[in-house]
Amino acid sequence: MIYLTRRERFSAAHRMFRSGLSDEENNKIYGKCSNPLWHGHNYVLKVTVKGELDPDIGYFMNATRLKEIINEKVIVKLDHKNMNLETDFMAGRVATTESLAMAIWDELKAPLAAEGALLHCVRVEETENNYVEYYG
Amino acid sequence: MIYLTRRERFSAAHRMFRSGLSDEENNKIYGKCSNPLWHGHNYVLKVTVKGELDPDIGYFMNATRLKEIINEKVIVKLDHKNMNLETDFMAGRVATTESLAMAIWDELKAPLAAEGALLHCVRVEETENNYVEYYG
Amino acid sequence: MIYLTRRERFSAAHRMFRSGLSDEENNKIYGKCSNPLWHGHNYVLKVTVKGELDPDIGYFMNATRLKEIINEKVIVKLDHKNMNLETDFMAGRVATTESLAMAIWDELKAPLAAEGALLHCVRVEETENNYVEYYG
Amino acid sequence: MIYLTRRERFSAAHRMFRSGLSDEENNKIYGKCSNPLWHGHNYVLKVTVKGELDPDIGYFMNATRLKEIINEKVIVKLDHKNMNLETDFMAGRVATTESLAMAIWDELKAPLAAEGALLHCVRVEETENNYVEYYG
Amino acid sequence: MIYLTRRERFSAAHRMFRSGLSDEENNKIYGKCSNPLWHGHNYVLKVTVKGELDPDIGYFMNATRLKEIINEKVIVKLDHKNMNLETDFMAGRVATTESLAMAIWDELKAPLAAEGALLHCVRVEETENNYVEYYG
Amino acid sequence: MIYLTRRERFSAAHRMFRSGLSDEENNKIYGKCSNPLWHGHNYVLKVTVKGELDPDIGYFMNATRLKEIINEKVIVKLDHKNMNLETDFMAGRVATTESLAMAIWDELKAPLAAEGALLHCVRVEETENNYVEYYG
Repeated sequence: MIYLTRRERFSAAHRMFRSGLSDEENNKIYGKCSNPLWHGHNYVLKVTVKGELDPDIGYFMNATRLKEIINEKVIVKLDHKNMNLETDFMAGRVATTESLAMAIWDELKAPLAAEGALLHCVRVEETENNYVEYYG
Repeated sequence: MIYLTRRERFSAAHRMFRSGLSDEENNKIYGKCSNPLWHGHNYVLKVTVKGELDPDIGYFMNATRLKEIINEKVIVKLDHKNMNLETDFMAGRVATTESLAMAIWDELKAPLAAEGALLHCVRVEETENNYVEYYG
Repeated sequence: MIYLTRRERFSAAHRMFRSGLSDEENNKIYGKCSNPLWHGHNYVLKVTVKGELDPDIGYFMNATRLKEIINEKVIVKLDHKNMNLETDFMAGRVATTESLAMAIWDELKAPLAAEGALLHCVRVEETENNYVEYYG
Repeated sequence: MIYLTRRERFSAAHRMFRSGLSDEENNKIYGKCSNPLWHGHNYVLKVTVKGELDPDIGYFMNATRLKEIINEKVIVKLDHKNMNLETDFMAGRVATTESLAMAIWDELKAPLAAEGALLHCVRVEETENNYVEYYG
Repeated sequence: MIYLTRRERFSAAHRMFRSGLSDEENNKIYGKCSNPLWHGHNYVLKVTVKGELDPDIGYFMNATRLKEIINEKVIVKLDHKNMNLETDFMAGRVATTESLAMAIWDELKAPLAAEGALLHCVRVEETENNYVEYYG
Repeated sequence: MIYLTRRERFSAAHRMFRSGLSDEENNKIYGKCSNPLWHGHNYVLKVTVKGELDPDIGYFMNATRLKEIINEKVIVKLDHKNMNLETDFMAGRVATTESLAMAIWDELKAPLAAEGALLHCVRVEETENNYVEYYG
């Protein structure tokens, strides 16, 4: 087994809040991250896939194809967007980095499997000091 | 003369647009950066001051004091905020990185001078691929 | 299971040496790292915890609380300190990056468990070219 | 078990191609990476070894010795070289990052075992956006 | 005056040599950088332009247009290329980072002026430890 | 004129204090940086030299020679040392980043001039958030 990781970036607005709660209650849970007027981040996304090397070709998945799938399924829906209001796969989820990593996993698993690659890890970095990893 | 630089970070939402124009017209000028539902960035701010070293103390300005001034005058007004709607010193300016650097200069010049430090450069990095510098 | 990592930094002095050995003997084992007059580093600490996502809140542990615990239990005892002489949890250990990672694990495991988070990995980076990971 | 990672760098030329195919056919598979006139990268190599800490010494393997072995067995054969034409351990392999990681594993496993260290992971970063990991 | 910088990257093969000299003589001057079988780098290019802010628009030059010009005039001629053999604007120049920075300046100055932007600095980073700046 | 920069690193212990003052008084001025038991940093040093390109050779100063001079004159006296007690050129100076940059300038100016290179800037980075530049 060999592991291939592709790094992509997107800049998005978001806020953390639970829909049934008041701004005050959300502020108690999420602090400044629940600002009703939004804030945003340059997110870094690292997607790791694994597979068996084909020694005749030297890889198990074309890195350019990996990049294309991540862009088509994930980046176009998040980059320069408001993830609470515009990103379909975030509907019904609290817009934390944790939920985001799990939602991205759900978007990528099948399309990658269709290319013969097993999704191994989705890593989302919100700032240089915080990141989340999800392995399914 | 010696130059001292302090790096700070803030995460903010914004959009680029001119108030008199329609969303369509703004989109022609600013593209996806004019998304009416906002997007955001992890901004990096680098503030450079200059002065004559006091050899008895080994500096011309205490770096901790520099950090405090940047935080009080700039970071608290931008971090986890919507800079178009919440940042007083951005009122009347298009929320580009260029305008932001110039506005931060205006906020910092006098308070730094009051500490005996000359503001030399304000650098604002919007992504890992774009940054702006202003020298007054 | 989802994994959350927090990055913190501390600047400390140290030297590597075994208490029963002469400076010469320590120099044979640890080289310049055993300098009796000390040297130091900007250490980077990455603490990874894991848990089950609470979908109503969007996380299993508040990242701000994680930061607080790391600071209270570890950073205040290391930052701008001499880890050989001043850091209680390094007493009786050779001040290598390996020992440091294991000692930090011992400091963090119980306080994190008390918050419902399982400590997964302690990573200590001594320079940009060397780091150590401990998984318990 | 504790894990120690050493980071090294090398700058090399390469092209991806299968020896039995024409330039046109290789271009279909590998795109611009198959340029017959070569291109190159600043590769980053991260080698992770694992072992049981010797508490009297504070490590299981001297980091300087790890660095020496990586340099002797791998870096001198790749740095400022053409990996297709000059690197003996790449003979008969397509010069992808995947093949490179596996070949480096083969070069390092025995020499590291002779020092009492178990090779855990070879990571090769080709650009800031792509990397490969091999665990044997 | 405000300064805008765009960062781009390209991966290229090269060697340093003077056409009239033997491989041995070139090796005396350029060392391993003169390897006749080539080596390569991930180059980082930073292009800084300056201009007067138009306060109605919030910039003096569209950053996307800056990116396009750098790509059209420079990156397509260098990325995944052999700069000695394939890059027209490097003809007749020794392929050092210094020559490269000056050649890129010559390529960019006029097209940027045509957009109303003054080229201020071309910075080329060959490795994480070496870079060159040219101000015309 | 073209500018060439070389980046080097050193890990050192230090404390900031004025010799005539008590620990308490030093603590008032320098805070935790005056810890009498020392602390330390991974310093990053960037030395920029300038000169006229020799078009036949493609540079004005060999980058390897620049590296050697920085190492001989500066790095060997600071790396894995206590800069207050062991670095001759810091004698009589308060061990701030500012003083360090000026002292390094004094050490490098003449040896670089002897190689035909004009020293342009000494930059010392103490942490990822603070750096000092000196231009003579």
